[in-house]
Amino acid sequence: MASMSAVNSKMLMLFSGRAYPELAEEIGKHLGVAPTPMSAYSFANGELFVRYQESVRGCDAFVVQSMPAPINEWVMETLIMIDALKRGSAKRITVVLPFYPYARQDKKHRGREPISARLMADLLKTAGADRILTVDLHTAQIQGFFDGPVDHLFAMGTLARYVEEKYADRPMAIVSPDTGRVRLAERWSDRLGGCPIAFVHKTRDPLKPNQVVAHKVVGDVEGRTCLLIDDMIDTAGTICSAAEMLAKSGVEDIVIASTHAIMSGPAVERLAAAPVSEVIVTNTLPLPKEAQDLDKITTLSIAPLVAKAIWEVFNDGSVTTLFGGLS
Amino acid sequence: MASMSAVNSKMLMLFSGRAYPELAEEIGKHLGVAPTPMSAYSFANGELFVRYQESVRGCDAFVVQSMPAPINEWVMETLIMIDALKRGSAKRITVVLPFYPYARQDKKHRGREPISARLMADLLKTAGADRILTVDLHTAQIQGFFDGPVDHLFAMGTLARYVEEKYADRPMAIVSPDTGRVRLAERWSDRLGGCPIAFVHKTRDPLKPNQVVAHKVVGDVEGRTCLLIDDMIDTAGTICSAAEMLAKSGVEDIVIASTHAIMSGPAVERLAAAPVSEVIVTNTLPLPKEAQDLDKITTLSIAPLVAKAIWEVFNDGSVTTLFGGLS
Amino acid sequence: MASMSAVNSKMLMLFSGRAYPELAEEIGKHLGVAPTPMSAYSFANGELFVRYQESVRGCDAFVVQSMPAPINEWVMETLIMIDALKRGSAKRITVVLPFYPYARQDKKHRGREPISARLMADLLKTAGADRILTVDLHTAQIQGFFDGPVDHLFAMGTLARYVEEKYADRPMAIVSPDTGRVRLAERWSDRLGGCPIAFVHKTRDPLKPNQVVAHKVVGDVEGRTCLLIDDMIDTAGTICSAAEMLAKSGVEDIVIASTHAIMSGPAVERLAAAPVSEVIVTNTLPLPKEAQDLDKITTLSIAPLVAKAIWEVFNDGSVTTLFGGLS
Amino acid sequence: MASMSAVNSKMLMLFSGRAYPELAEEIGKHLGVAPTPMSAYSFANGELFVRYQESVRGCDAFVVQSMPAPINEWVMETLIMIDALKRGSAKRITVVLPFYPYARQDKKHRGREPISARLMADLLKTAGADRILTVDLHTAQIQGFFDGPVDHLFAMGTLARYVEEKYADRPMAIVSPDTGRVRLAERWSDRLGGCPIAFVHKTRDPLKPNQVVAHKVVGDVEGRTCLLIDDMIDTAGTICSAAEMLAKSGVEDIVIASTHAIMSGPAVERLAAAPVSEVIVTNTLPLPKEAQDLDKITTLSIAPLVAKAIWEVFNDGSVTTLFGGLS
Amino acid sequence: MASMSAVNSKMLMLFSGRAYPELAEEIGKHLGVAPTPMSAYSFANGELFVRYQESVRGCDAFVVQSMPAPINEWVMETLIMIDALKRGSAKRITVVLPFYPYARQDKKHRGREPISARLMADLLKTAGADRILTVDLHTAQIQGFFDGPVDHLFAMGTLARYVEEKYADRPMAIVSPDTGRVRLAERWSDRLGGCPIAFVHKTRDPLKPNQVVAHKVVGDVEGRTCLLIDDMIDTAGTICSAAEMLAKSGVEDIVIASTHAIMSGPAVERLAAAPVSEVIVTNTLPLPKEAQDLDKITTLSIAPLVAKAIWEVFNDGSVTTLFGGLS
Amino acid sequence: MASMSAVNSKMLMLFSGRAYPELAEEIGKHLGVAPTPMSAYSFANGELFVRYQESVRGCDAFVVQSMPAPINEWVMETLIMIDALKRGSAKRITVVLPFYPYARQDKKHRGREPISARLMADLLKTAGADRILTVDLHTAQIQGFFDGPVDHLFAMGTLARYVEEKYADRPMAIVSPDTGRVRLAERWSDRLGGCPIAFVHKTRDPLKPNQVVAHKVVGDVEGRTCLLIDDMIDTAGTICSAAEMLAKSGVEDIVIASTHAIMSGPAVERLAAAPVSEVIVTNTLPLPKEAQDLDKITTLSIAPLVAKAIWEVFNDGSVTTLFGGLS
Repeated sequence: MASMSAVNSKMLMLFSGRAYPELAEEIGKHLGVAPTPMSAYSFANGELFVRYQESVRGCDAFVVQSMPAPINEWVMETLIMIDALKRGSAKRITVVLPFYPYARQDKKHRGREPISARLMADLLKTAGADRILTVDLHTAQIQGFFDGPVDHLFAMGTLARYVEEKYADRPMAIVSPDTGRVRLAERWSDRLGGCPIAFVHKTRDPLKPNQVVAHKVVGDVEGRTCLLIDDMIDTAGTICSAAEMLAKSGVEDIVIASTHAIMSGPAVERLAAAPVSEVIVTNTLPLPKEAQDLDKITTLSIAPLVAKAIWEVFNDGSVTTLFGGLS
Repeated sequence: MASMSAVNSKMLMLFSGRAYPELAEEIGKHLGVAPTPMSAYSFANGELFVRYQESVRGCDAFVVQSMPAPINEWVMETLIMIDALKRGSAKRITVVLPFYPYARQDKKHRGREPISARLMADLLKTAGADRILTVDLHTAQIQGFFDGPVDHLFAMGTLARYVEEKYADRPMAIVSPDTGRVRLAERWSDRLGGCPIAFVHKTRDPLKPNQVVAHKVVGDVEGRTCLLIDDMIDTAGTICSAAEMLAKSGVEDIVIASTHAIMSGPAVERLAAAPVSEVIVTNTLPLPKEAQDLDKITTLSIAPLVAKAIWEVFNDGSVTTLFGGLS
Repeated sequence: MASMSAVNSKMLMLFSGRAYPELAEEIGKHLGVAPTPMSAYSFANGELFVRYQESVRGCDAFVVQSMPAPINEWVMETLIMIDALKRGSAKRITVVLPFYPYARQDKKHRGREPISARLMADLLKTAGADRILTVDLHTAQIQGFFDGPVDHLFAMGTLARYVEEKYADRPMAIVSPDTGRVRLAERWSDRLGGCPIAFVHKTRDPLKPNQVVAHKVVGDVEGRTCLLIDDMIDTAGTICSAAEMLAKSGVEDIVIASTHAIMSGPAVERLAAAPVSEVIVTNTLPLPKEAQDLDKITTLSIAPLVAKAIWEVFNDGSVTTLFGGLS
Repeated sequence: MASMSAVNSKMLMLFSGRAYPELAEEIGKHLGVAPTPMSAYSFANGELFVRYQESVRGCDAFVVQSMPAPINEWVMETLIMIDALKRGSAKRITVVLPFYPYARQDKKHRGREPISARLMADLLKTAGADRILTVDLHTAQIQGFFDGPVDHLFAMGTLARYVEEKYADRPMAIVSPDTGRVRLAERWSDRLGGCPIAFVHKTRDPLKPNQVVAHKVVGDVEGRTCLLIDDMIDTAGTICSAAEMLAKSGVEDIVIASTHAIMSGPAVERLAAAPVSEVIVTNTLPLPKEAQDLDKITTLSIAPLVAKAIWEVFNDGSVTTLFGGLS
Repeated sequence: MASMSAVNSKMLMLFSGRAYPELAEEIGKHLGVAPTPMSAYSFANGELFVRYQESVRGCDAFVVQSMPAPINEWVMETLIMIDALKRGSAKRITVVLPFYPYARQDKKHRGREPISARLMADLLKTAGADRILTVDLHTAQIQGFFDGPVDHLFAMGTLARYVEEKYADRPMAIVSPDTGRVRLAERWSDRLGGCPIAFVHKTRDPLKPNQVVAHKVVGDVEGRTCLLIDDMIDTAGTICSAAEMLAKSGVEDIVIASTHAIMSGPAVERLAAAPVSEVIVTNTLPLPKEAQDLDKITTLSIAPLVAKAIWEVFNDGSVTTLFGGLS
Repeated sequence: MASMSAVNSKMLMLFSGRAYPELAEEIGKHLGVAPTPMSAYSFANGELFVRYQESVRGCDAFVVQSMPAPINEWVMETLIMIDALKRGSAKRITVVLPFYPYARQDKKHRGREPISARLMADLLKTAGADRILTVDLHTAQIQGFFDGPVDHLFAMGTLARYVEEKYADRPMAIVSPDTGRVRLAERWSDRLGGCPIAFVHKTRDPLKPNQVVAHKVVGDVEGRTCLLIDDMIDTAGTICSAAEMLAKSGVEDIVIASTHAIMSGPAVERLAAAPVSEVIVTNTLPLPKEAQDLDKITTLSIAPLVAKAIWEVFNDGSVTTLFGGLS
């Protein structure tokens, strides 16, 4: 016989980095597929080692890695996990990054800087990633950094559903904490039925570069419940100082909504002290212990959204249709 | 003798596409280097042909191509010119694109769309481009689309110098025509000494996607000369309707400043009719005849800036230092 | 469960560029698959936009684009369509080019020229094309320009079948209009049973490069029906002047057979005036209106051949076996 | 209908180079798949030509090529066979190299040398190979030279099974013929139950580089049956001089075990003369006629191992599990 | 000090493969640069080893390799030489191939064939070649197979100068031995002042593929000295049978001119017996001993042309201008 | 004027990562070039940022990064520094890695493992590295993992010079702590005049994988000063247990020599307790504080060797000649 035929089946396998295994497990539960057991440890000098405990040959691999601090550990672990899948003959490798690392270094702000967000895309490709699945990129242009398909999911649906239910009866305003998120505020306004949008304008001293001399709220916020929106909360400096500006502007109440809760350094302390009644975030990143203890923080799970997207990718369904997101 | 040595010299050569040869010539005059003569013609079915009339072997090539309509002709001509340089043994090829083509398609707005701005970067690389030199990208992230150095120049210096001289004594406000350019307005405000910024908010009907039901100016503009800014004027629809909103808001005067004057379709007619006293643009693109005839349009030349950048690139100098731009 | 399995099915989808949708539709009818609906339009400055109206995830995509004037528009549209498929997660992308663009610039005729036919292959690859399916390349070596499989179909079967039926009873000669197609003439002669072949020799003035001083028919044509063959008719200059030379050589009748009817500029006028009784072409390109009106032009459809090839590619059948062509 | 679906099947096809067709046939028998008929011949100037006599479209191709002398012929034939498969639309191409060519040039021993083993990996990749399947690499690091999955099988199981059966009752020592294979000796010792290991130390003249002044056996060998092990026997110089050193050290018997029997130049003569009772090798390479005639040479077949590995690769099974080898 | 500057000089180094060292030495003499000493040998199983005896760091390397039988040895040696240069930090690597290997397999003549000429270009690129310099490619399209500059020299100048001097006073005809070289015959005719051209037409049996039933000279040759031209003479079958056809057609004399003298198998014997008075070739390949002994063979040296081209490439001069060839 | 020429100069610039700036500074002192000032900091979530404070356009960049714990931080910093150099138009980028990261994961020890050492090479290449300069790779084959020149320096000269001076008058033996470094021991023996070599054999329980049941010194060590050699000391487990075995074997004295002093976890404590009189290492890695306090550790500087190699690379000199190392 000159050839031998067989039906070609496909097999979904889930892999979890060590940064935030609870998220991968939650995603796995929605899918009915447990993450594949993996031996992983760090040597004394920091070198990482991984090995899968089951054959990955021919599988359709989904590698879930959240990217909290120490982020370089997790980036490197992800690359090494991809390399092991590639060399172990996985058929297709999709990297699921609920929070895309280095997303803020997406351009040269001045000369002689790196564009680290592009570098990340190239490193993932070099290691062997075929596709990326991610949530709320800092700028949507990062999709174009990767040479291959990127499924870009939006958490706004998850966040907005909660806001609508809880604050439906209040007059609202959507506020961008600086001039960079006014477009996003507009999208929220469209979603919530057309309420006013505003932003905080920082005036800089023309003689002293980068020195802010005044803040000013631009837009109609008086008497309203202000929804302060941003894609991520890192040290919470910008968003808390915006909240303070708002508090002085006769607003009724202030609520924060943000997808990625990095919550580094003084973030939790600042949020606790800020004139803000609720901080709504998702679990694209693991919430630090002290943040979990802060009552005003509400965490919504991103796992159902990510699980549905993985399912559609595996089954060649339309991600666009299901989630209103970009596929 | 087992080897032969020689001093290694370098040679700057300038090449001009056919889209807007006047700009390349003006740049060449600033540099003291005329564009290299090239045979170029289009066959009846549209296929292009180019051939350089002098040897390009070993040269440091700068290919200047503006990108007006019909833009695909000029993209293809640029690619073919690069290919001919590569195969003719040019040592390094820098593509000078005063206006980067397809810059607006820099992400997937919805599923199943291309990211044409990334595609352009890849096509240029494939043809043989080593570097790109460009002016005022639609979004700075496009730098990261190219796998190599991008010198990104800013026309704001050129435009602002003119504005400062002419409108120095007036109370001003910087206005973004929509929510997408508020950050740029902030940069202008910083440059011009901290004047207020504003933007136009379009409210959409939540039941009818993409249908705008109301426009509203957000910010302090009353009694001021409003500088409406944008990176490009295409059909001038957005900017002219913003001007009209402003005119109803008790402003003193309205001036438009924009780097790229695409001026397609009804643009000139709209600008003529708009309540705008001056429209300041640069010559990154050739101004259509009817726009040249409109008195209120002022064109500033980008050639000195581009020529200086080419000079620094050739001499390994710092583009950042000279122009305050990104290198 | 550590993994989830499913049967792997494959799905053929057809996509049509806007250059010549009738051909794609005709191909689709033979396959029983309609082209996927696509939003596509050109902005005022010439930038193109496409978006597929249905999910393309996981499909086996066949992008059909004919390449008439303005050819650069269609090349660019094809590249953008491929990019959108790649980013939309199509599994495999085959570009169907009945007429390969820039095929005549397949080498450097002199120094400092591009090799645009190779450039086209690289651009298609860069955009994301996995395979090419094409008809009657100007030179078969162009297959080697693409880094991947090329299915190269021959229209000679289609054309020859028609010639045999209509001119079976006449003494024939196959004539190449210049020295470049004598090999093709030989293949026609083999196909039609061994009739004589001839060509037209242009003598050039040794002192004035490229200046033809005399034409001469070399070969036995007297009293015969001459089949003037070429791969394409562009401006029809060469082939019509060859026809005139033949007419002076005592031939019985002259018939032209050519795969690609570019028919640009004065082509139709020349063919109308030429001493030729019939011009047989295929519809790899849309026939210009004035050519459709010229009675002596006979158009044979290439759609059945292309449809069968697509079918075999989708089903992993042999293209070689079915069509006697190269796979 | 906007698309057409079909079940996706996969088809294993076996291809054999001309270096050692008997091995491919033996592998094929174990699989129940005969090698695909191929036209192959060499032109008078040495250029090779191959053409498959059946369609290879969509197949899962396994190209088996042994690499005896003249090795460059077979490397080139393999590359050309891969190119023909790639251009003929094979879906996946696995190159089966029982003996990896140029494995010994796996680093620069001194400056200005090539790393030919990496070059081979890159050439295979460039031609179109997706995967490599090989046996007992000279150094395991060569796996990392290929940018893709490498299935690395070990012949030690096959060899050790034979040794265990035949020499079970004797006190043994495992001996490395030089300092480079002591690690391998240790692995054999582990496999055979912990017998002593030894090696031959060559002392060099410090004043005359590369000139060996003395050999010395280091380790406990007296009264034992010594198993001299190495990955390959080329000219047999090192291993035979090691055997002679052992013979002078009061050993009971000497047996050689080695995977790759290159057996070039004086190898057979040397082995015949050496104080060695048995030479155990595999058929990763065809045994030269004179070696076949030497009674003390025992050849074990590698075909069952390779066939099982191909079977698992085709079926996405675990190669690691089955063979205790690396996958 | 934050940096250290030095003048950048460049250094030409010549490297010779072992296929035909006399040619490299002759080229070196014209340049005044001897080939760099290299250790090179073949192991018993055919594996090659090379090492340069001098530092190659930073040099502008020209690797000269002729490609006679056994051609795969020399291809592999060339690739290994390039790898050693790349890893030894040569700055630029130009491969000088007076005869391009596998040039005749430049397309798929039928399905499931390789395109070996493209494969060669890719292998050279992969090994590290930046540029190719070659003479009289079988088809000029092969230039487009290499992703980089190709300097394509023409030997016609060298051959034609000799023909003009020797046969100036005779009425000539240029004859192509088959239908594939009529275009080349036309170029010769143009060069020699417009003499007639002819070719040999082989009629095949329509029922028995590839079986030639008749040969016929088409064109005006009677009473003329026929210059039978071809790019290469391999087994000399086609050209000698063409000579015999001519001899029966009343010609005055027959002379053969061909760039590449492969002269394999029965070539010399056939040429000796053929009705041909002189066979003019170049030394792009080493002439076999028996061919050197045949008086009617005249060998012209290609070394001056190649040396001048290397000189111009090193000095960034125009190859086009100097040789009338393509650069 | 159609072009402008200038002398092409080259400029060496040194860049230092933050892992071990003292080494880069010491190297810089030997070269007379200070490391270029760089802004670098880590964000709260671990993301790194770098920016050079001087123009790097056109420079010949040498990026020095040692790789101590936390190694992933420094790998990522190196990649980002390279990216910034590439995008800042550095002409050539050489990465100087005195200790190559992840060198021990240079192969798949079992199935489904990564080959992290190859991954590192690919990541460096992707970021933009043109060349690598490194010291004492764990296995020399890692050179072949990088697609470009690798300058591989040997610290043995530095270490051996010290050993020779201090221990010249003692009878010595070179000991490998396991079976993997016997070849290295042989090289030391050759260098030190031919003294005996030995190694420690670990016997494993055949029934319990990886469980060592006995250690045994194989070779002649009695009454000798044993030089225990290894390429790196990580936790010092293997080498200290080897020292203990030796101490029980009647040796005179034990000295350790090793290039890379990782010294992680219990290493210093173990070395302090081990029956070893001196531990000789180099400063390819920064010595931990507690190791600096251990009197028996002697640190030799690698900076002079690295500085000379950088100098030769910049000046296109031979690294091989100068250091007896591989270039």
